[in-house]
Amino acid sequence: MSEAFDAVDVISAKRDRAELSDAQIDWVIDAYTRGAVAEEQMSALAMAIYLNGMKPREIARWADAMIRSGERLDFSGLSRPTSDKHSTGGVGDKITLPLAPIVAACGVAVPQLSGRGLGHTGGTLDKLESIPGWRADLTNEQMMHQLEDVGAVICAAGSGLAPADKKLYALRDVTGTVSCVPLIATSIMSKKIAEGTGSLVLDVKVGSGAFMKELGQARELAETMVRLGTDAGVHTVALLTNMETPLGLTAGNALEVRESVEVLAGGGPADVVELTLALAREMVAGAGRSDIDPADVLADGRAMDVWRRMIRAQGGDPDAELPVAKETHHVLAPADGVLVQLDALAVGVAAWRLGAGRARKEDPVQAGAGVELHHKPGATVRGGEPLMTLHTDEPERFARALEALEGGFTIAPEGSRPDLPPIVIDRIS
Amino acid sequence: MSEAFDAVDVISAKRDRAELSDAQIDWVIDAYTRGAVAEEQMSALAMAIYLNGMKPREIARWADAMIRSGERLDFSGLSRPTSDKHSTGGVGDKITLPLAPIVAACGVAVPQLSGRGLGHTGGTLDKLESIPGWRADLTNEQMMHQLEDVGAVICAAGSGLAPADKKLYALRDVTGTVSCVPLIATSIMSKKIAEGTGSLVLDVKVGSGAFMKELGQARELAETMVRLGTDAGVHTVALLTNMETPLGLTAGNALEVRESVEVLAGGGPADVVELTLALAREMVAGAGRSDIDPADVLADGRAMDVWRRMIRAQGGDPDAELPVAKETHHVLAPADGVLVQLDALAVGVAAWRLGAGRARKEDPVQAGAGVELHHKPGATVRGGEPLMTLHTDEPERFARALEALEGGFTIAPEGSRPDLPPIVIDRIS
Repeated sequence: MSEAFDAVDVISAKRDRAELSDAQIDWVIDAYTRGAVAEEQMSALAMAIYLNGMKPREIARWADAMIRSGERLDFSGLSRPTSDKHSTGGVGDKITLPLAPIVAACGVAVPQLSGRGLGHTGGTLDKLESIPGWRADLTNEQMMHQLEDVGAVICAAGSGLAPADKKLYALRDVTGTVSCVPLIATSIMSKKIAEGTGSLVLDVKVGSGAFMKELGQARELAETMVRLGTDAGVHTVALLTNMETPLGLTAGNALEVRESVEVLAGGGPADVVELTLALAREMVAGAGRSDIDPADVLADGRAMDVWRRMIRAQGGDPDAELPVAKETHHVLAPADGVLVQLDALAVGVAAWRLGAGRARKEDPVQAGAGVELHHKPGATVRGGEPLMTLHTDEPERFARALEALEGGFTIAPEGSRPDLPPIVIDRIS
Repeated sequence: MSEAFDAVDVISAKRDRAELSDAQIDWVIDAYTRGAVAEEQMSALAMAIYLNGMKPREIARWADAMIRSGERLDFSGLSRPTSDKHSTGGVGDKITLPLAPIVAACGVAVPQLSGRGLGHTGGTLDKLESIPGWRADLTNEQMMHQLEDVGAVICAAGSGLAPADKKLYALRDVTGTVSCVPLIATSIMSKKIAEGTGSLVLDVKVGSGAFMKELGQARELAETMVRLGTDAGVHTVALLTNMETPLGLTAGNALEVRESVEVLAGGGPADVVELTLALAREMVAGAGRSDIDPADVLADGRAMDVWRRMIRAQGGDPDAELPVAKETHHVLAPADGVLVQLDALAVGVAAWRLGAGRARKEDPVQAGAGVELHHKPGATVRGGEPLMTLHTDEPERFARALEALEGGFTIAPEGSRPDLPPIVIDRIS
């Protein structure tokens, strides 16, 4: 077996801060996918990339090589334009659920290939699977048919898209090489570009509950992804959005579905409605349909119609009762005052520990588990009233969830005015 | 299975430039040896160490943890003191062969646990295996017996010494994490300290044919190793020695044995004799026997006697004819002049390509293959006379060996005076 390059030479080049050539990148991604570059070699390269970075040209080629490692979908045969959304992940981030039907109701097809959750951020598929009967796995044909017929599909990404990324993502998870802009950007964008969407809106979260804790790093990630998408011919816009505190009032699978249905019914927490509409407007505009205001299809019930058809098309019953956890525990406000801080990470970890998330990808999740908030930052509270309710089927989980919440919220004296950043911090196009 | 630490946390700490705690280091080395830390995790950690370094405290603990991963030998029952030598590897470096018998003839026991060669530097065991009948594998008991009886043993290191290092060394070789001072120093010193020698002399090579191309890096490695040895109670001295040009006039297995026997017979190239005696004096002094001058035991034939007994004790015939390669090819001087430069790496790679070395550890080596030099830098040569002779059993190897030698030597006009550094550049204790 004669290889074009030697893995040690490629690793050593990046270790010594050299730029990798196009041919080196093409080879290393292909050889890794085939197994000719070993896991321990790719992890050394990933750490060298983590610490020494990649130039824009290298990042573009890396993403392109990952796209070429697998199949590409093609939505050009659909009768309507396509638009997709990707969120870098946050606590209580159920936005995809109301968003996909809203955008579809505007005449734009939404092929939302999603994943399951790992760690403190929930997965869109885990949330939808709390709906009795709903299934995530569709063939490409079923997906195409549903896109044409209903206009929106939220399903599991097939293993044929960017298999190099699938392998590398699992490797990064166990080797301390996750939180690195070039590797995150190429991972996300290789899948999204291979998926074949015509336009894409990125929701890049910033704050304690997000991967990116700092605005500078989030901005760098957003700019890198927008560049990759644009260069690949995909109309791409990114919003930098606040993840210091959870989105909405729920974190947990069935809890978040319930809140999403409330939004589609014209209610729901203001922050969820605001962010959903902001993203919907970007998606609709990106697909060339700026003539339609997503707020209208939300208000007149057309979005709810699409939701019901979308759930039903995948075997779910939109009218079924959602699972409820067997046990609840209230967390009470310790004093009168103003809730000035409610930490997204603390709530996310608590929900995870209650059973809403998984530590390993083979773990099951509880449909009913999670955290329900009764107040958002800025609210005036009375000592002794419930601040939040914890839900789980296994009451022995409460102790560790409460531990996660220690220091996770602050009540300041009455009259205090918390510094609340806007939901949408910036827009990058 | 409950582990004291999480591998990702340890990797992330070093990635983020933190110092690893003693407990983290102990755990990661032990867990790696047991297989609870995976190869791809250790390679990410090795790359993070390569790029972010380790503090002296971390280096000491890392070496100590590797020593504790296996057994320790104990020579305190011997009737004489022990001293050992380690070379970081160079081209034509056969010094161990004459050195061990010389030091043993001075009344100091020499337990020389050696390895096989990989890449352009030859291995001591490969060289001795060109002697018909000689075998490298001894039990600990046979080694002890030979040390007491003959005074010197050169044999393969058992797998019981520092097994963590054995695993890590193989991993570093394929992940671009070899040439890193903390990892080299702990690899060498963990084996040498576990081996149980009372004193140790390090021959740290500097120059084109060495791992360390630059004096600063070589000095850092030498100082790190001397500190590790001293802290572990081993009398340790390092010599920084020149490896810009090959040692002696031969690079290749049987070729180097022949030259070593010439040295023991009172002849041999001046640089080999000078370095052998410099190292012998350090070893003898380190073992508390400064009363004896190694030059005397070399001159009066006692060192040669020990050599013959040492070879015979391991099944070898000191009087047997050594293997000779089937084919030779002369490299001629292109012009009259002075040989001002003869590059160690070029000669080492040529010898390797002729069959003297191996690319993978399972490859065989040719006993007779290698490069024989007819001149050393500083010599006046005539155009058309042989500068060197290439030896191999497989004449198709000449072309790639000649390629390696391109630009590897320089003939300057007559009267030129090359800048020849001393063999021993510095001493660190």
